[in-house]
Amino acid sequence: MSAANSLAPCDIVVFGGTGDLAIRKLLPALYLRDRDGHLDDATRIVAVSRAGLDDAGYRDKIAAELRGFVPEDCHDTTSEERFLARLHHITIDIAGQDPWLELITRLSEAPDSVRVFYLACAPRLFGPVCQKLSEARLVNEQSRVVLEKPIGHDLASARAINDDVGAVFAEKQIFRIDHYLGKETVQNLLVLRFANALLEPLWNSGAIDHVQITASETVGTGSRAGYYDTSGALRDMVQNHLLQLLCLVAMEPPTRLDRDAVRDEKLKVLQALRPLEGPDVLRATVRGQYAPGLVDGEPVAGYLDELDGKPSNTETFVALKAEVGNWRWAGVPFYLRTGKRLERRASEVVVQFNPVAHSIFPGIADEFIAPNRLVIRLQPDEAIRLHLVTKEPGPGGVRLRQVPLNLSFAETFESRLPDAYERLLGDVVRGDPTLFMRRDEVEAAWQWTEPILAAWEQSGTRPKRYAAGTSGPTAATALIERDGRTWHEEDV
Amino acid sequence: MSAANSLAPCDIVVFGGTGDLAIRKLLPALYLRDRDGHLDDATRIVAVSRAGLDDAGYRDKIAAELRGFVPEDCHDTTSEERFLARLHHITIDIAGQDPWLELITRLSEAPDSVRVFYLACAPRLFGPVCQKLSEARLVNEQSRVVLEKPIGHDLASARAINDDVGAVFAEKQIFRIDHYLGKETVQNLLVLRFANALLEPLWNSGAIDHVQITASETVGTGSRAGYYDTSGALRDMVQNHLLQLLCLVAMEPPTRLDRDAVRDEKLKVLQALRPLEGPDVLRATVRGQYAPGLVDGEPVAGYLDELDGKPSNTETFVALKAEVGNWRWAGVPFYLRTGKRLERRASEVVVQFNPVAHSIFPGIADEFIAPNRLVIRLQPDEAIRLHLVTKEPGPGGVRLRQVPLNLSFAETFESRLPDAYERLLGDVVRGDPTLFMRRDEVEAAWQWTEPILAAWEQSGTRPKRYAAGTSGPTAATALIERDGRTWHEEDV
Repeated sequence: MSAANSLAPCDIVVFGGTGDLAIRKLLPALYLRDRDGHLDDATRIVAVSRAGLDDAGYRDKIAAELRGFVPEDCHDTTSEERFLARLHHITIDIAGQDPWLELITRLSEAPDSVRVFYLACAPRLFGPVCQKLSEARLVNEQSRVVLEKPIGHDLASARAINDDVGAVFAEKQIFRIDHYLGKETVQNLLVLRFANALLEPLWNSGAIDHVQITASETVGTGSRAGYYDTSGALRDMVQNHLLQLLCLVAMEPPTRLDRDAVRDEKLKVLQALRPLEGPDVLRATVRGQYAPGLVDGEPVAGYLDELDGKPSNTETFVALKAEVGNWRWAGVPFYLRTGKRLERRASEVVVQFNPVAHSIFPGIADEFIAPNRLVIRLQPDEAIRLHLVTKEPGPGGVRLRQVPLNLSFAETFESRLPDAYERLLGDVVRGDPTLFMRRDEVEAAWQWTEPILAAWEQSGTRPKRYAAGTSGPTAATALIERDGRTWHEEDV
Repeated sequence: MSAANSLAPCDIVVFGGTGDLAIRKLLPALYLRDRDGHLDDATRIVAVSRAGLDDAGYRDKIAAELRGFVPEDCHDTTSEERFLARLHHITIDIAGQDPWLELITRLSEAPDSVRVFYLACAPRLFGPVCQKLSEARLVNEQSRVVLEKPIGHDLASARAINDDVGAVFAEKQIFRIDHYLGKETVQNLLVLRFANALLEPLWNSGAIDHVQITASETVGTGSRAGYYDTSGALRDMVQNHLLQLLCLVAMEPPTRLDRDAVRDEKLKVLQALRPLEGPDVLRATVRGQYAPGLVDGEPVAGYLDELDGKPSNTETFVALKAEVGNWRWAGVPFYLRTGKRLERRASEVVVQFNPVAHSIFPGIADEFIAPNRLVIRLQPDEAIRLHLVTKEPGPGGVRLRQVPLNLSFAETFESRLPDAYERLLGDVVRGDPTLFMRRDEVEAAWQWTEPILAAWEQSGTRPKRYAAGTSGPTAATALIERDGRTWHEEDV
């Protein structure tokens, strides 16, 4: 297994090397792959920031942080020492005029290594960084660039970023990361759909009643409120994560599990989304903004308080009803929902099958037979459950009971579940962008999202207030209940 | 739950009250229902035999035997005492001429009780017993008769028995018991099929490759060899148990889970079985007879030795390929297999779904993706497993792994699994014959079975020898392998 997963020698250059993302996600993920023996001896990690640290200073900083973001049973002094020795730091002011001599020197020491430029910095710097890399002649065939979200805040700005990055890197070198796609359960959704002949005949409007995609958080925007206020839930979560999940659920079987076949199919789904425009938007979407409330029994501030009273129409919650206008899915609603300061933290896809056509069981009306449901949970615990109805044992009449068949990984498999970043970073080094968003996908997603933002703006309405710690605005409940359906809460 | 399962006051008259079936199965089942509080205080069990015992003598006999046939954790002195007090014994020579005065007197003490006449005696006595019951005016509206297999040894003899019994009891009073149908997993098959919208769209030749129905035993015929030699595996197992299981797998959804709707659908399946006649029989069936061999490391005798060297063509093993000629099942083989002295004891139905149409997974050919399989095991441990393919966790490429989703009752449910007889006896008292064979079913099953027996007879061939403790004749393997399929062995 180690052999299959070991990665070619590479230099991973992290722009924003002292930032939150690097410290909380990237370095822990790289440490874990290193500990599992997947990093080549020659692999280096070069952090770039304005922090004015030398290698030793950066290693000290990371040494002090690392254990806080790595599972306790993966702490291990030998591995940590080996990992820290791979770290380097170069001080660069990206916005400045200096040539990147130190970086050029460092990278020239390993001319054959794969070069990964990880842009864990503000999106407005994506273009400038790429241009500088180009000027410094650091981009070769063996180079790749990784972009973190957001890729723009609307279609035009996304295009501008894609143009700037595309001027330096070929599309196949550009890895737009969406860590949702690196989740084991998301991968497994593809395996479930396409390695089991059972599911494909059911995977359409003939057998599926509707789909729910939820990403709910208990945290608020906190100190990020200022930044968040320029974005909102639709841009921050729906345009990327939720639509990507929708694509994986809805896509036609690709010919092969490879970058173009898969992304072509996802793109087709985005292009098949029925546009939500004008008055349709107000019928099919609900936006909310959290007010003060209680989370885990503690009082928490409302969103406007976190903005220090600045007025804002930015939504911290959105629920909407989407439809994929093609033969497979026509008439099957996809209910999407995401928000901050909600009562539970959960990201999940629920595929709800049709109810039984007719109850043959004496004394049990159709509507008391729970419809089958496939629940793919990404967070907090990755799991896939198929809810079936079975007979409760015992003599006498037939009594039905719903039983969740558990495909929970922790129970079924012994090995540690890798974090999404661990997988995705490996894919970057290997040059496999199957699980990353292609330019046309990002732009198609913006194309569908933009008119919603515009309609909200034009409507002159405000987001609905919801108390922190609740399940969101009541209008979101009404959105689905109106169709005779219910949001899926708390899995058994 | 007790309330729902408690049974009306009844007199259960067991003809053959000192026989194997009564002692090993019926009385333990009644004891367990009594212990669970389901028998009314007024319920009595009246054993009939030639044994010349009084009530006390019979109670002593049963007291000495009962614990051997009841699960250890169900032994309980209070319940045993209560149960033994329900027992009575009347000495009758069924073949004799005496009027059944003592039985008439006993039953007249409880004129309002439900009367169950359980014929746990030789089938040749079924007619005479019924006639005597009629002459003694013991049969009223509230009476039922239970017939154990075999109902005849061919169509004509089955008709004769059904005529004799039918002259005294209306069809709705006749309970032809097949204890396979009382198994929890068999019940659950109906619930799985009809309480889950998921399965019905897949339940046809479009998604199912083939079905296997196996009932294999490790025991030989032993001291029953003399009787067995008049029957054989086809009559003893296929004509009833295996065809009944086939019916439950193959039947169309009944309108209601009631006696006529369910049995009408089962009958339609039996009538849709493609006849196996003449030379087709030799192509589509394999019969075997066990020779000496090793079972659990111990040498055991061959069938002919157990017959004391008497020559015999009776089959102790049969494998055959049946087909249901209707729109749902055309082209889907049903492989049936049963035998004695085989290497493992297992009764199970395996529904094997089609392989995936196409592998999208790089480096994994279609034929390496295990087809989905639903395994319904009746013995030794009742369980239902759905085999799905999932992704093995970990970074790097996609690795597939087959995982059995377990619906095993012992794990899912806390309550004790009732024995088939417990359930079925309750159904008899309640007057619900849904899980019992109707006259037309028995006769249709004989109609299909008879030409197979005739063709074997006419062919002048002998059953294939197989060593005891093996999986049967190699020709049985060839029967299925010829179609590019394999018998399902050993569940994970």
